[in-house]
Amino acid sequence: MRAVSTPPTESPSPSSSSSPSPSPPARRDAEATRAAILRAARYLLARNAHADITLKAVAERAGVSAPLILKYFGNKEALFARVMSFEADAEALLDAPLDALGRHMVRHVLVSQRERGADPLLRIAFAPLQGDHGDILRVNFRAQVVDRLAGRLPGPDAALRAELAVSTILGLGVMYGIARGTRLRDTPTETVVDRYGPTVQAHLDS
Amino acid sequence: MRAVSTPPTESPSPSSSSSPSPSPPARRDAEATRAAILRAARYLLARNAHADITLKAVAERAGVSAPLILKYFGNKEALFARVMSFEADAEALLDAPLDALGRHMVRHVLVSQRERGADPLLRIAFAPLQGDHGDILRVNFRAQVVDRLAGRLPGPDAALRAELAVSTILGLGVMYGIARGTRLRDTPTETVVDRYGPTVQAHLDS
Repeated sequence: MRAVSTPPTESPSPSSSSSPSPSPPARRDAEATRAAILRAARYLLARNAHADITLKAVAERAGVSAPLILKYFGNKEALFARVMSFEADAEALLDAPLDALGRHMVRHVLVSQRERGADPLLRIAFAPLQGDHGDILRVNFRAQVVDRLAGRLPGPDAALRAELAVSTILGLGVMYGIARGTRLRDTPTETVVDRYGPTVQAHLDS
Repeated sequence: MRAVSTPPTESPSPSSSSSPSPSPPARRDAEATRAAILRAARYLLARNAHADITLKAVAERAGVSAPLILKYFGNKEALFARVMSFEADAEALLDAPLDALGRHMVRHVLVSQRERGADPLLRIAFAPLQGDHGDILRVNFRAQVVDRLAGRLPGPDAALRAELAVSTILGLGVMYGIARGTRLRDTPTETVVDRYGPTVQAHLDS
């Protein structure tokens, strides 16, 4: 499974609840359904031309009805845009002060991989080298991840430094999720953060 | 096109030749044919189960005869082993003294991408997450790239540090070859080597 975006409309959990599970069952079901629809769309988009995928095919693969997809996502184009967007993932990946961002990005990738079997950026590694689907992913990746980070960097060569910081983070995801590096997987998160974070931060600082 | 291994049996070019092309046409043809066969096998292996691929299918895709494949590679298994091996690529990637290895690895990836449209390691990013093909690639990648590098590293945590150095290099390949980072592609090789090399070297040194 690849990165699953957090629903942007999610409301905060009730803080007064003493239940070990913070979400009421109805909302958990809705989130699971939404995730299944996104997974199905992502699967089909990775294997078919955009225009050839029907809402019915997504519904069948997700095990839901087509009207339910419309209820959650509005229409097919909105669903596909959502699948190909890095907005929500970049928001979480870059959610730290600049002087702590290198460590935060490393920790965020490791925690996402460990706890959800997902990665905020790894979809770009699967982008087809030809065709619309890959090109849309590349354009989104640049605008929503790289340019967003570059906009926060002071000093010269901000765009290049942002690409190099993101390269470093991408490599960690490939090693963890695809090459399945055994030492990386066996090492405590904070130990990896201590070693790898500074090499990301180096690009952010100068 | 992915990484194309250098034929290990290649003989040196005649140094006394004043021709602008150092290879006689017959050998260039043989090398092109060999590369076409490897490309065809790589393409089919990425899309089919190992056992389902016939020598005839590889031959048809490469535009050569099946006996010619046997002449070059011995048999089908030897050809597939060659396609899934990182030996020759690791040899070139790691061919530098340890104190200059970080910069060498960065330069080698950039030059391979720029001059051949190939990358020494990027096949691992395309390894299927399930099945024999992906698993063989992962095992080879660990033994032939990561462990080989780890064996050269003094000090503690050599295996983890090797994985992190290789992660950093993998990310550069993904950014260049798949995400197609525009700044990275527009920046002179040695400028990138100056910035990115030290972050790889940091893992090799301590």
